[in-house]
Amino acid sequence: MNLSKYIRNIEDFPKVGVHFKDITPLLGDSDAMESCLQQLMALVGSQKIDKVAAIESRGFFFGTLLAQKLNAGFVPIRKPGKLPYTTLKEPYQLEYGMDALEIHEDAIKKGERILLHDDVLATGGTARAACNLIESLGGEVVQCNFLLELEFLNGIKKLRNHSVQSLLKY
Amino acid sequence: MNLSKYIRNIEDFPKVGVHFKDITPLLGDSDAMESCLQQLMALVGSQKIDKVAAIESRGFFFGTLLAQKLNAGFVPIRKPGKLPYTTLKEPYQLEYGMDALEIHEDAIKKGERILLHDDVLATGGTARAACNLIESLGGEVVQCNFLLELEFLNGIKKLRNHSVQSLLKY
Repeated sequence: MNLSKYIRNIEDFPKVGVHFKDITPLLGDSDAMESCLQQLMALVGSQKIDKVAAIESRGFFFGTLLAQKLNAGFVPIRKPGKLPYTTLKEPYQLEYGMDALEIHEDAIKKGERILLHDDVLATGGTARAACNLIESLGGEVVQCNFLLELEFLNGIKKLRNHSVQSLLKY
Repeated sequence: MNLSKYIRNIEDFPKVGVHFKDITPLLGDSDAMESCLQQLMALVGSQKIDKVAAIESRGFFFGTLLAQKLNAGFVPIRKPGKLPYTTLKEPYQLEYGMDALEIHEDAIKKGERILLHDDVLATGGTARAACNLIESLGGEVVQCNFLLELEFLNGIKKLRNHSVQSLLKY
């Protein structure tokens, strides 16, 4: 199934000049969701995965679905202050200013094989911060897995030492 | 499987006096996740569901899993400013002040049968606002489905006209 027809372009969201890719039409269609999940699974192939880590909030949509299909645990990586237990925190650069991500310190055990998932690879800043968190806990990032990649932003450069797979490229 | 041993108590989160129920140990264990999904599905039974609507962000964890199992579409209900397309907005009361939820105006068609899912039923304010959004679009809330219910907060009172099912009660 060609999933791109389920991706809606929204101009000037969240701010002027940004062409936002809205995946909610895809989520709203059960056949498109199922096909998307199968296609994301195909990117993972037969690699053994212990846990799927996904980035708040849109990464959660397919994150738990991937975890279930892979028979893996699920780890949410969230914005500061959202995770209730003791966390590791990793700052990252935004266009203007800084933001940060957190992970529970007991979310990943040393040597576990992790699939990192998010909906979109843009500049790569958040994905890179997420990789750092996973690796700080001793996890191995087996693949950075995205539904969409905005190639013109060259986010792959920030993930240079990792395997990166994206379903749809713009 | 008794899922309560996978729920961790966190005292004074997000603020002093709150006993927070942390579901991340459950998410991190693939067997517990699978069992939780089966048990949530059992609450739904054989009712026909067109779409699962889930509330940001923790409702997303099992929301997409339920949608997939039910062969239903998935609808995210989010905090203001997060959804990119035209939205309906529903304010609701917090302990101090107000907050609001939004839904895409094209997310649900008139007459569609909706399962509303969130991780926790507390005071019922967010769930009630979510029901209002679904019903404003002409959807029928077939069930309000929760992983946990904090019974002492009596949230069920705000959902009086709806079927409410929760897996674990505290």
